[in-house]
Amino acid sequence: MSSPARPFNVEQLVADLRAQLGDRVTTGESHRELHSHGESWHTPGRPDVVVFPETTEEVAAVVRIAASHRAPVVPFGAGSSLEGHVSALQGGISLDLTRMNRILRVSADDLDATVQAGVTRKQLSKHVNPMGLEFWVDPGADATIGGMASTRASGTTAVRYGTMREAVLGLTVVLADGRVIHTGSRARKSAAGYDLTRLFVGAEGTLGVLTEVTLRLFGLPDAISAAICPFTTFEGAVRTVITTLQLGIPIARIEFLDDRMVDAINRYSKTSYAVQPTLFFEFHGISERAVSEQAEAVQAIAREHGGTAFEWATTPEARTTLWQARHNVHHAGVALRPGCQMWVTDVCVPISQLAECLLETKSELATLPLTTPIVGHVGDGNFHVLCVVNPDDAEEMAVAKAMNERLVRRALRMGGTCTGEHGVGFGKMGYLEEEHGEAIEVMKAIKRALDPLNLMNPGKMVRV
Amino acid sequence: MSSPARPFNVEQLVADLRAQLGDRVTTGESHRELHSHGESWHTPGRPDVVVFPETTEEVAAVVRIAASHRAPVVPFGAGSSLEGHVSALQGGISLDLTRMNRILRVSADDLDATVQAGVTRKQLSKHVNPMGLEFWVDPGADATIGGMASTRASGTTAVRYGTMREAVLGLTVVLADGRVIHTGSRARKSAAGYDLTRLFVGAEGTLGVLTEVTLRLFGLPDAISAAICPFTTFEGAVRTVITTLQLGIPIARIEFLDDRMVDAINRYSKTSYAVQPTLFFEFHGISERAVSEQAEAVQAIAREHGGTAFEWATTPEARTTLWQARHNVHHAGVALRPGCQMWVTDVCVPISQLAECLLETKSELATLPLTTPIVGHVGDGNFHVLCVVNPDDAEEMAVAKAMNERLVRRALRMGGTCTGEHGVGFGKMGYLEEEHGEAIEVMKAIKRALDPLNLMNPGKMVRV
Repeated sequence: MSSPARPFNVEQLVADLRAQLGDRVTTGESHRELHSHGESWHTPGRPDVVVFPETTEEVAAVVRIAASHRAPVVPFGAGSSLEGHVSALQGGISLDLTRMNRILRVSADDLDATVQAGVTRKQLSKHVNPMGLEFWVDPGADATIGGMASTRASGTTAVRYGTMREAVLGLTVVLADGRVIHTGSRARKSAAGYDLTRLFVGAEGTLGVLTEVTLRLFGLPDAISAAICPFTTFEGAVRTVITTLQLGIPIARIEFLDDRMVDAINRYSKTSYAVQPTLFFEFHGISERAVSEQAEAVQAIAREHGGTAFEWATTPEARTTLWQARHNVHHAGVALRPGCQMWVTDVCVPISQLAECLLETKSELATLPLTTPIVGHVGDGNFHVLCVVNPDDAEEMAVAKAMNERLVRRALRMGGTCTGEHGVGFGKMGYLEEEHGEAIEVMKAIKRALDPLNLMNPGKMVRV
Repeated sequence: MSSPARPFNVEQLVADLRAQLGDRVTTGESHRELHSHGESWHTPGRPDVVVFPETTEEVAAVVRIAASHRAPVVPFGAGSSLEGHVSALQGGISLDLTRMNRILRVSADDLDATVQAGVTRKQLSKHVNPMGLEFWVDPGADATIGGMASTRASGTTAVRYGTMREAVLGLTVVLADGRVIHTGSRARKSAAGYDLTRLFVGAEGTLGVLTEVTLRLFGLPDAISAAICPFTTFEGAVRTVITTLQLGIPIARIEFLDDRMVDAINRYSKTSYAVQPTLFFEFHGISERAVSEQAEAVQAIAREHGGTAFEWATTPEARTTLWQARHNVHHAGVALRPGCQMWVTDVCVPISQLAECLLETKSELATLPLTTPIVGHVGDGNFHVLCVVNPDDAEEMAVAKAMNERLVRRALRMGGTCTGEHGVGFGKMGYLEEEHGEAIEVMKAIKRALDPLNLMNPGKMVRV
């Protein structure tokens, strides 16, 4: 397949890139196809060329070449994006960062590490676990740290350890004109200047390319236990979460699954959990005693709210079974309709609104011809409808789209957000405008100030 | 005293402001003097007029009037700034927000609150404590929430509860042209767009005026205890902190005082603590048992590092005595030289560098003719030299200035920051440039994009 006409000279662009990176530049069809999409149903966008830089300086050189040609630069990590972030909508360069996979520094005393952007979270965990350390942000996929920072990712442990917003202490960023800056500090806190670190975290590559990330780590807890508890009602489960947080019980994970999701898990993982609204818990502490105390306190709260069958998983094996089942929700969902794909919604609401939001959503879903289990990071008020769709069925896709739209508007009405952790990409640009109103103009002003040629992941986040 | 010549018509400016705010506009000498400085030795800057808006709409009207006259707008809260943030260096309007002191909303279920920017932290605490809630960021002074957000303040509890960076969930901001935007969301997390909340937090009023702040609260802990422990060496105290954090002991406060500081406290507070490097601790937990377990673990760690005289303060009275002594360090410092003022340094370094940074600093201070007790939020790597100076003694001020400069450069060399929590104002603009290098240009680009006329707290933060 030849490229569509571009406002830049593709051949000359490729020649200039080859002069810089040699054989780490490819225009092969398979590479271009692979780099045209993430893991979602969104329209792919094929880059003209894929490059594999290994250092910040090489990224800067690529960005300077791109600027000289007025060609777009689209960063690419593990390709696990769910909102079309990595599609090269206007062609140009897919900047594959996976060869920037070196862990540059770990400090056990400072509980931090600096890594190249292409390091994956599992790679980092494996590296730091023997030092008694852990990087806790866990979005499920084995995403790259650069991708996770760029989408402000989170996951099951955010309720205790925060999201990438809290986890990133500093960045090395290649700006749109190829300049390299360092943001933040290795100091644990700073009041020195505008918070550029937090500005680039979640900017989805639209303001510059992240090449190195300094991250906060934690000591591995001395004791861990887990539990599962079915509830008679949604409200009971949510009220259990609210009371747990109010009491300051430092719960490490608190995950919600609706009855459909539990059923799907049972089928897929050969488990036999009660098919009811269910909470999965994990407790971390400085001792077995501390962990037991937390778990007993939560058990007592659950009992008051219709969660009577609290079941412990204290052995590592039982914990693994439980969390393996939780981690497999995507596979379990897709297994409900083999051959289909997942359209994953991602609203997040104030937790006081969560029960109502879930109930309204469930009652709407009951009327739709869709397969829609629900899973949620309820400690944060974030839940996903795992809408299993056939992307080739236009009618079904329209139903799913309308459902997502109503869900987003429901969340916004309740003071929530259109995306808790998956980001905007080009899938949610319209909702972003609805959510932020006039503040969108400030985002556009920043985009124009830092990327005046609109070459950094163009067509994503904001319309400039 | 008449105003110096201004590039805007002061009389007409005042007339326009009066048309909007009536008698909540003053040009009285005493008001202008009061609004010309914070609590530091920095050169004051007298505004031409002081206004007292009561709503976001009134702030927007004031900012629009200011823009039409090309007159600066300098937000003013409690006036407890330490780096000259509130000085009206180029005259114009001092925007006193203290009448915007309404607590707009508290949600115990969501553990959050929305307040007008002029609410003070003690006012908020007093309001939410009866609901079993607490706002934990504690910079010492009874600062306004708007001021604390603007300087990214923190204090003794940041090690557990974070700084204003983590505490602020959303903002209402009046932009330089009078437009009003809302940033963030009441959802606990969001991946929706550029993180404008974190951009305005710490921007010191140079990008817009904060008028409303949504804050994260916590449940009041069921159990609290405190302790004090003198150490034979600095290194022992710092190593105790490092190990405590590595083990994940959720310590609520961990404060360092050097021997001079302990001595000053003993004199001022009539206490009899051992005159040695000392740590003050506070433990919060879900039960007495949980708190005892934390404290015992820390006691064991301290013992290994030369902290043998660990002393408990379990009764509320003993705790109050201990923390009252800690809170009075400023008074205790000034009491060493009655009639003098405090020049407070504010570096923050990676905790692995803290012992070395403290030792180098102490050995330099020993050679200087200055009174310089040290106090630090060591869990964050942040410490303050409380340099008690006579601002009228130019020679002494020059010695203090040179000491501060060497201290900042020492911290930067160690990967730290020139300001952990006091901010930049105009006192640290040069150091900000040294710290951030090329990234300063990004800050300037943002400043120019959002405040093209340079009217929002001009002469602070970045030179544009």
